[in-house]
Amino acid sequence: MKIVKLKLKERSYPICIEEGAINKSGCLLKKLNLGSDAVIITNRYLEKKISPTLKNSLKKHNISSKIYVVPDTEKAKSFRYCLNLIDKISKHDKNKRLFLVALGGGVIGDLTGFVASIYKRGIAYVQIPTTLLAQIDSAIGGKTAIDLPIAKNLIGAFHQPKTVIVDPGLLKSLPKRQLKAGLAEAIKYAVIKDESLFSFLNNNYKKIMALDKEAIESIETKCINIKSQIVEQDEKEKKGIRTILNFGHTIGHAIESAGGYNRYNHGEAISLGMLCAAEISCNLKMLRKEQLDKIIFLVKLYGLPVKIKGIALSKIMSSLAKDKKFIHGKNRFVLPVGIGRVKVVTHIPENTIRKAILKYSSPN
Amino acid sequence: MKIVKLKLKERSYPICIEEGAINKSGCLLKKLNLGSDAVIITNRYLEKKISPTLKNSLKKHNISSKIYVVPDTEKAKSFRYCLNLIDKISKHDKNKRLFLVALGGGVIGDLTGFVASIYKRGIAYVQIPTTLLAQIDSAIGGKTAIDLPIAKNLIGAFHQPKTVIVDPGLLKSLPKRQLKAGLAEAIKYAVIKDESLFSFLNNNYKKIMALDKEAIESIETKCINIKSQIVEQDEKEKKGIRTILNFGHTIGHAIESAGGYNRYNHGEAISLGMLCAAEISCNLKMLRKEQLDKIIFLVKLYGLPVKIKGIALSKIMSSLAKDKKFIHGKNRFVLPVGIGRVKVVTHIPENTIRKAILKYSSPN
Repeated sequence: MKIVKLKLKERSYPICIEEGAINKSGCLLKKLNLGSDAVIITNRYLEKKISPTLKNSLKKHNISSKIYVVPDTEKAKSFRYCLNLIDKISKHDKNKRLFLVALGGGVIGDLTGFVASIYKRGIAYVQIPTTLLAQIDSAIGGKTAIDLPIAKNLIGAFHQPKTVIVDPGLLKSLPKRQLKAGLAEAIKYAVIKDESLFSFLNNNYKKIMALDKEAIESIETKCINIKSQIVEQDEKEKKGIRTILNFGHTIGHAIESAGGYNRYNHGEAISLGMLCAAEISCNLKMLRKEQLDKIIFLVKLYGLPVKIKGIALSKIMSSLAKDKKFIHGKNRFVLPVGIGRVKVVTHIPENTIRKAILKYSSPN
Repeated sequence: MKIVKLKLKERSYPICIEEGAINKSGCLLKKLNLGSDAVIITNRYLEKKISPTLKNSLKKHNISSKIYVVPDTEKAKSFRYCLNLIDKISKHDKNKRLFLVALGGGVIGDLTGFVASIYKRGIAYVQIPTTLLAQIDSAIGGKTAIDLPIAKNLIGAFHQPKTVIVDPGLLKSLPKRQLKAGLAEAIKYAVIKDESLFSFLNNNYKKIMALDKEAIESIETKCINIKSQIVEQDEKEKKGIRTILNFGHTIGHAIESAGGYNRYNHGEAISLGMLCAAEISCNLKMLRKEQLDKIIFLVKLYGLPVKIKGIALSKIMSSLAKDKKFIHGKNRFVLPVGIGRVKVVTHIPENTIRKAILKYSSPN
């Protein structure tokens, strides 16, 4: 089993990567001495497919568990589910040795982490991510959140999990579209920090899409290492270091939001966001044209969108203005300056942003 | 101005104690560079009486402010007010340089701190406590919470304020019953850590009840120093050090809860809780009878209750069993072993607890 240790003093934790790791979860969690009772938050599909394995493994190590099922959509990240979950937890919390397990993708991880952060001023939780996106990104680093009608992720907390169990075997039942969405985040890591990962993604399309064990474990370990190192340096996104993880996310979020969160999924939207950011960088003479073309090629290779369809530029621009990453009313972008290197740039002229988005927009 | 510095690395903050400090709040907050826009959370009475002074002081230092009024009862510590407040904040949050100000007692401090902890994964807030209890206890140390129908303070976070402005002048309009409730917490500090404070309270009844400037500032500084030192050693109540602040609170909370939160206020309930804990200690031969009598005398001196009236023992016992401080289903009490010294004791026989509560119960 590969272990990446995320080091944050008393909040440090191991990220365990291995195909079949889910079968060892009881043993892994027992060693961490998190408690005797677990509440597993998951969706209907995973409840049937994966949770029996997890429950058995926990039971073998004398950890009782209850399941709480939430919808498999962003809807689950609401105050309503938050309150219902707390009610469920408090009923199961007899021995005061309870912890939470997020078994699912980013939505379930965010909700579970947030509830763990506020229940009794913070209890333990673990992440067992089941999508590629969650395995390499959202399950790591302790960012938790729920949505309010006025804005996504408006409410949240930094609350680190006690461990993350990454089982690439769980990806086998993942729809291809979601796998690709996860690969968009892998491309992000490659562009911001790791040229060798970029080449690997470029040269191993077939193996990766076939979920070849070694190829996937290799990508995941690289991505998780990058994320861990960044989180270690800037846990609460206060030093401008963690900011680079937002490459592609500024315009990406605006595209998601302007599309009403149903036209593009997160990975697709940030693919488009990465292209726009790279375009801006190219226009500002910070990125060479051939490097921009390499990024476009890789995004295209994995079947991720390279054109924004059916969303008006004006809508994207007005969503952008509301972004919480626009500090003090001024814009701030993470721009690639090569493959594996980015810079945080502020005060980009609105027209430059507008032109870049327009270039990747399609009239249809 | 007396400044007690609460040292928690990057979360350190000054606690500023001075009569009239409210007039300097704009200057104090400007120096801390918290932002350009404030939302002040307060109640209807304080909005009229105190907030104009505060708003003026902020305005002089170019800090805009909006007021959010909540009820002056525990009702304000609900999800409903939490959500309404977030809505209000997000509307005022144009420049992304917003912070919160809690102007009120413990309820307002708890709600404000909790909202500050979850809005955008944590924003700055300051405490301007207006009751003695909040000035010496609840406003300091970063414990925040709201209630759910199933239990008080079930949801919360540890989120330190950026400063606490303690103005004893604000206590002049405080009802005597609330002043006494605050003195109950002062007695608590004296019993757990400071024999000289105990003597001071014993020897200066008149001055204290007349809100003599020097007497109050002296008590407040002593209490705040004790609280700060304990919080510095055990910020998140994980090492069993902060636990001693719960002296009187275990049975006290059970009395509050069994009384439906309207028979006794917090200070009154913990007075009774302190007597019961001291009685248990005496029965276990850990506290001398004459020391117990001294504690009873001081509680009586300040007109705090020494008899539980109109609440059945069985109700108190069943509330006790639900206490979140009862870890792993076992009880845990903070017991005085002298004036200025306490011990944390677990596994106290139920009958010993029962007898102590019965002794301080009155049939009427």
